[in-house]
Amino acid sequence: MHIPKIYRSDDLEVMKKIIAENGFALIISHHQKIRATHSMMMWNEDNPEKPFIESHISMANPQADELKNGDAVLCDFLGAHTYISSSWYNHINASTWNYEAVQIEGIVELMNDDELYNHLTKLTLKYEKNQKCPMTVAKMGDDFVLKSMKGAFGFKVLPTKIHIAQKLSQNRNDNDFQNIIHELSTSHKDNDKQIADKMKNLRPLDKFIKK
Amino acid sequence: MHIPKIYRSDDLEVMKKIIAENGFALIISHHQKIRATHSMMMWNEDNPEKPFIESHISMANPQADELKNGDAVLCDFLGAHTYISSSWYNHINASTWNYEAVQIEGIVELMNDDELYNHLTKLTLKYEKNQKCPMTVAKMGDDFVLKSMKGAFGFKVLPTKIHIAQKLSQNRNDNDFQNIIHELSTSHKDNDKQIADKMKNLRPLDKFIKK
Repeated sequence: MHIPKIYRSDDLEVMKKIIAENGFALIISHHQKIRATHSMMMWNEDNPEKPFIESHISMANPQADELKNGDAVLCDFLGAHTYISSSWYNHINASTWNYEAVQIEGIVELMNDDELYNHLTKLTLKYEKNQKCPMTVAKMGDDFVLKSMKGAFGFKVLPTKIHIAQKLSQNRNDNDFQNIIHELSTSHKDNDKQIADKMKNLRPLDKFIKK
Repeated sequence: MHIPKIYRSDDLEVMKKIIAENGFALIISHHQKIRATHSMMMWNEDNPEKPFIESHISMANPQADELKNGDAVLCDFLGAHTYISSSWYNHINASTWNYEAVQIEGIVELMNDDELYNHLTKLTLKYEKNQKCPMTVAKMGDDFVLKSMKGAFGFKVLPTKIHIAQKLSQNRNDNDFQNIIHELSTSHKDNDKQIADKMKNLRPLDKFIKK
């Protein structure tokens, strides 16, 4: 992912929010060929000295046969994103796409059984806590969980390079910037409304400091 | 992407719909390392004998320096997707994620200037046709377009293998299947409503023929 300076963030809080809200992300590896699997990922910084992405894929996935300790992989998290029409600008220009995204280059470390158990517990808690009758690992019972774990290939990705993109029309003049927000705000699509909100919440100085 | 048989589609119409509706997709390549860029992609079957994905990335993107004719790459299109809570089932089970996705393994062919011009024209038409005052390549004028083209790296991906996933709870019993639709239908999130609709639209026989 190439991120021109004006769209680049080095704010780890922005990164954590993008990862938390877009946890169904892509683990990409390369052995004989490129393989990529959509899986549920979480940021783990229990040990602030050694943060990592944690996830699991199906043991039946050929990528699980290939992923080894030390492999260099890429995790891709695409956040809110939408088309931006140049017909909304006050001058001729090319249309574009606004988006937030995080890419984490990192090194694979395979989970042991305890780590996989903790990962599944944490994942269940994350997504179940807002359900009407939350399912928990305790409710599932250890027999069920231990059996399920046999079908799950758990892994961590230890970051070597983090890329955080917030492409939110920072290169536009104020008129066009406000008009994009206006057009997206009138849409009924979640992505449009989210990008409008993210543009509104850009600190005013962001647009100028980075120029 | 590993697709268990029950979730696998070989319907090219399903593929074309996923690509058309999720055109901001990922081109993944590998030279010294894995690189992946989110870019606007379209399916082109003007010549039914030689269909391809067409797209462009910024000439300033290091991936543009690396992509060469004949490279084996992967295009990833994630469609509607959402979390499915096992608390909606009538028995203990693990939660999961439902989604539609297409992955196209293919070979890169770089565009010449005419192809890039046609690609940008087609892309503009696709996204502008529903705008209030559509921008067109004609309105932009050839001077502007030809200048813009210098910053764009156009490429095609000729498919060698196509993967179409429709993971839509086909493995659930009828009670749970209907309950998932019910729960998702009460949500205000686009992705939830889309997955509910896709589940409703699965041909009833799909669930059983594939078993």
